[in-house]
Amino acid sequence: MSDLPLALGIDFGGTSVKTGVLYRGNLIEEAARIDTQEFEAAPPLIARIHETIVELRDKHPGIEAIGLGVPGFVDFPSGMVHNLTNVKGWQKIHLKHELNELSKLPVTVENDANCMAYAEWKRGAGRGMQNLVAMTLGTGVGGGIVVDGRMVRGANYVAGELGQSSIDYQGEAGAYGNRGSLEDYVGNQQITDLAHAAYTKAGEHKDRSDCAPAKLTTLALQGDPIALEIWDQIAQKLSTALMNCCWLLNPEAIIIGGGVAKAGPLLFEPLERQLRAQLSPPFKDHLRILPARFGNEAGIVGAASLALEEAGFDIDD
Amino acid sequence: MSDLPLALGIDFGGTSVKTGVLYRGNLIEEAARIDTQEFEAAPPLIARIHETIVELRDKHPGIEAIGLGVPGFVDFPSGMVHNLTNVKGWQKIHLKHELNELSKLPVTVENDANCMAYAEWKRGAGRGMQNLVAMTLGTGVGGGIVVDGRMVRGANYVAGELGQSSIDYQGEAGAYGNRGSLEDYVGNQQITDLAHAAYTKAGEHKDRSDCAPAKLTTLALQGDPIALEIWDQIAQKLSTALMNCCWLLNPEAIIIGGGVAKAGPLLFEPLERQLRAQLSPPFKDHLRILPARFGNEAGIVGAASLALEEAGFDIDD
Repeated sequence: MSDLPLALGIDFGGTSVKTGVLYRGNLIEEAARIDTQEFEAAPPLIARIHETIVELRDKHPGIEAIGLGVPGFVDFPSGMVHNLTNVKGWQKIHLKHELNELSKLPVTVENDANCMAYAEWKRGAGRGMQNLVAMTLGTGVGGGIVVDGRMVRGANYVAGELGQSSIDYQGEAGAYGNRGSLEDYVGNQQITDLAHAAYTKAGEHKDRSDCAPAKLTTLALQGDPIALEIWDQIAQKLSTALMNCCWLLNPEAIIIGGGVAKAGPLLFEPLERQLRAQLSPPFKDHLRILPARFGNEAGIVGAASLALEEAGFDIDD
Repeated sequence: MSDLPLALGIDFGGTSVKTGVLYRGNLIEEAARIDTQEFEAAPPLIARIHETIVELRDKHPGIEAIGLGVPGFVDFPSGMVHNLTNVKGWQKIHLKHELNELSKLPVTVENDANCMAYAEWKRGAGRGMQNLVAMTLGTGVGGGIVVDGRMVRGANYVAGELGQSSIDYQGEAGAYGNRGSLEDYVGNQQITDLAHAAYTKAGEHKDRSDCAPAKLTTLALQGDPIALEIWDQIAQKLSTALMNCCWLLNPEAIIIGGGVAKAGPLLFEPLERQLRAQLSPPFKDHLRILPARFGNEAGIVGAASLALEEAGFDIDD
């Protein structure tokens, strides 16, 4: 096995850093997670990440490239992280350069949602496609776009921010002043708030924690009309942002992953119905709306696959 | 001159068909317009278009390619027109094939808004750019997108329909069932209606024809507060759809043309202000919002340039 390329994927999240070794699209080992919040600045966290890299390389000498997905904007060619909102001390950090110096391996740094999209495109539900939109639904809403067989990065490598796109020009101003951003309607917390308000209004007093998306899924499966109605409302909002992607980009598939997508048909059925009702035939006749193949491992798989490809290896095995 | 490639551009509109001869980006001759509505079916109109082609080729034997921009969806590789909403008898018409048989020249057929975008990208305000969004504001709202130095056509060649994208998930259903479509807020008629209602509400009784965009521009330049307010509202709606393009595609420029764009700074100033207020730094620091270089001739210039390039000529002279 050691003569075939292995890659190391690192999913750098606001809570923890997850690291794994990828072999032909399979995660063959995962390292212990690193608690992101234990570190007050970037240098000690980078040193700690490098310790994990050293350990994994000792076990797997065939590792040829390192890929990282980070929750923020990245200057892709230089691998400089502009800013990580939820991690202390991460402004203008030359992550690619630092880890390359330490490891002497090729390093690739990319936005985490783009890594998820990359995993689905190269190894998952979007394999072989030339045009797709991938969306991840969780605490936040992320996205990644493939056009004409290439990941769309844009003029400053920050494209694909589906969660920041607006579904209401009169909506409240969001994180960046953007009115009516999708994330402000269908993020984890927003779904919970919406459900909690609906139950309260109906005279049902539920704890807020019993209104989280996973609980809503259970309730909806039991036929609870309020939970069903909430999923329908979420689908309506999602369908607007995804319809916009369709009118603009005419993708062959929309791939949806992340925790909220675990609602399955409760979400996908109304979403598909509402999306198709708002598109003309050439946009919808061949359109597929697909659940993501990967779950929590999407970031690692995507980052590692991207790193291998950037390092010049053919990953379409 | 005859040994340098000339191209024939045809701007096929719902009202008239305009034809011109392009030489190095300059329109050197235009033919008499053909009245689209005089024809009850596609074959006689195609024959009439071919008469114009023959006349122009007699005068300009150096014509090497023919490009057509049409107001509807086109299957780009085959040049088959799916449907032209406002022209009788145009469903599933193999326009490229028909004109190629008649003229024996290479023929290219593309959506009209894509032709406008192509003109601006290759010959106009977006020259040399790799990532841009072009929008044309008139009776309808059209768009064309360039990503990574390529025109975005999508899985079925219908991408770029900016006017159909939504700015309000609760808006009224539009032409294709799509709720809150941009075109339903900022099309020519919609602006006129909005202004007419605003004047009526303020107790000023104006004829509807005195509320058209060109009149609103004159009134706003005279300091009329209602006209200024209308342009501000139009800018707010446009900024939402364009912001969405920025979050998704991170273009280096947004190029705006068409009759409504003649409002100039009355539109561009509030638009730029509202757009920048809703984007984070990496999306706006290098973003330019530019007026289109071309006016009514954009369609001819774009179609002719595209046809030359598709026929294998280098048009970056």
